[in-house]
Amino acid sequence: MGVGLLGGSVALAAKAADESVRVIGVGRRQSSLDRALAVGAIDQATTDTATGVRGSDLVILATPLSSYGQHLLDMLPVLKRGALVTDVGSTKAGVVAQAEKILGPGGPFVGSHPMAGSERKGVEFARADLFVNRVCLLTPTARTPQAVLAAVEAFWEKLGALTLQMSPFQHDKAVARVSHLPHLLASLTVQIQKAGSLDLAGAGFLDTTRVASGDPAMWREIVLSNRQAILSAIDDAQRQLQRLRGMIDASDERRLEQFLTQAKTHRDQLVAQRRAREE
Amino acid sequence: MGVGLLGGSVALAAKAADESVRVIGVGRRQSSLDRALAVGAIDQATTDTATGVRGSDLVILATPLSSYGQHLLDMLPVLKRGALVTDVGSTKAGVVAQAEKILGPGGPFVGSHPMAGSERKGVEFARADLFVNRVCLLTPTARTPQAVLAAVEAFWEKLGALTLQMSPFQHDKAVARVSHLPHLLASLTVQIQKAGSLDLAGAGFLDTTRVASGDPAMWREIVLSNRQAILSAIDDAQRQLQRLRGMIDASDERRLEQFLTQAKTHRDQLVAQRRAREE
Repeated sequence: MGVGLLGGSVALAAKAADESVRVIGVGRRQSSLDRALAVGAIDQATTDTATGVRGSDLVILATPLSSYGQHLLDMLPVLKRGALVTDVGSTKAGVVAQAEKILGPGGPFVGSHPMAGSERKGVEFARADLFVNRVCLLTPTARTPQAVLAAVEAFWEKLGALTLQMSPFQHDKAVARVSHLPHLLASLTVQIQKAGSLDLAGAGFLDTTRVASGDPAMWREIVLSNRQAILSAIDDAQRQLQRLRGMIDASDERRLEQFLTQAKTHRDQLVAQRRAREE
Repeated sequence: MGVGLLGGSVALAAKAADESVRVIGVGRRQSSLDRALAVGAIDQATTDTATGVRGSDLVILATPLSSYGQHLLDMLPVLKRGALVTDVGSTKAGVVAQAEKILGPGGPFVGSHPMAGSERKGVEFARADLFVNRVCLLTPTARTPQAVLAAVEAFWEKLGALTLQMSPFQHDKAVARVSHLPHLLASLTVQIQKAGSLDLAGAGFLDTTRVASGDPAMWREIVLSNRQAILSAIDDAQRQLQRLRGMIDASDERRLEQFLTQAKTHRDQLVAQRRAREE
């Protein structure tokens, strides 16, 4: 459900991994569905959730987080026995609680968060290899049936993703730091420019702020659905920025270079790990 | 002088633009000079400033900012009449004052800052096309002779750069915002990660923090040579972060989306300008 960049990529990847897979796209607007049909991401299209869900083995929510409630209510009466439900949303605690409440605890839902995406929007940018070698987080709870978890895990692995499991709460705390706060800092980096300074932007600035070109409505929703964890990450960032300011104000060469060196070391290690994984 | 990534790229670009150009590399270590000779960036190498500078038409400082003073003193007695001196340093007010003091006001120096580089180090990563379509800032003062400015400007334009002029002070204020603070925020984004969160890093995180893999000693020097402007940019960033925190804390959908939309709009405009420039 939802045939944008992520939903479209899941569909393309699933079809590439297994020729027998048929995908029904559920969307709000016929125009998006037509484009998803045109690029071959989906085999059939409908604007009606029940029509799309009835008979499906796996339902994937790839719509804005705020629409999940209605979609879950709409699919409940028509979900096939044994069907699985998952999603691709960027925050998990609220989503998982909502899905367990509507579809039943011990039900067919387990949350997923593939760590892949783009600042671009729309099924035109969907790619069958978007998840290859990317981490996909699965967020089971104590109530998630093992069989549901295993089946959804196997699905993402077939798409080339590396799966990791954590609780919805742990997930939200971690992504607040590694994804949501960096997004906000990228937007802030654009916002503090003044007349004249933006003209001097180099390649570094463009990379540093790439994510700030992401969809504002989607990111507003992500941020507000993970408020507490993000506020705590912002508080940490403010403390670190104050510490850094102190070093610069005091011209403390040793501590400033240590700060920069630690950041470089951690990032270089991460890059080396990612390279090793891709080889 | 200085045969690293930037110095080596200037040399390669100058030779590519004009076959008759001969480059003498001046470096501290014979090993760096040997590598610069091996990749064809320089025609001749020396560890002695006077030997390298004597007879040269154009001297380019591409060494750490802290070494400029000694280099300028060393070159003064051997600079040929009519020779030009410039540099590639990331901050300008201190450098320009120092050069005017040592080489004389109205002398042969004008500051340059090509907005191009890499998080990588060393002449192996030097590229003849590094400056093509990149901005190169020139920072003349009231005392800079027009002929010196025009000649250095023509040099960068021959290398494919787009030149812009501003005062050293204006330059330092602007780059504090568009380059130095973004660098510090990228390092800070790495530093606020906790055990576990870094494992979830996606492509967005890697882009956002790319510059944090830059050379810590070089960046420590850049930051401390532009302290006042950076402190003022940090103060602005702290105010903006506090404002953003307030919007999130209050779940203010409208203002948060407006903040994200403004950032996206400004960045998208910048990307569109850059694309137009490259076509």
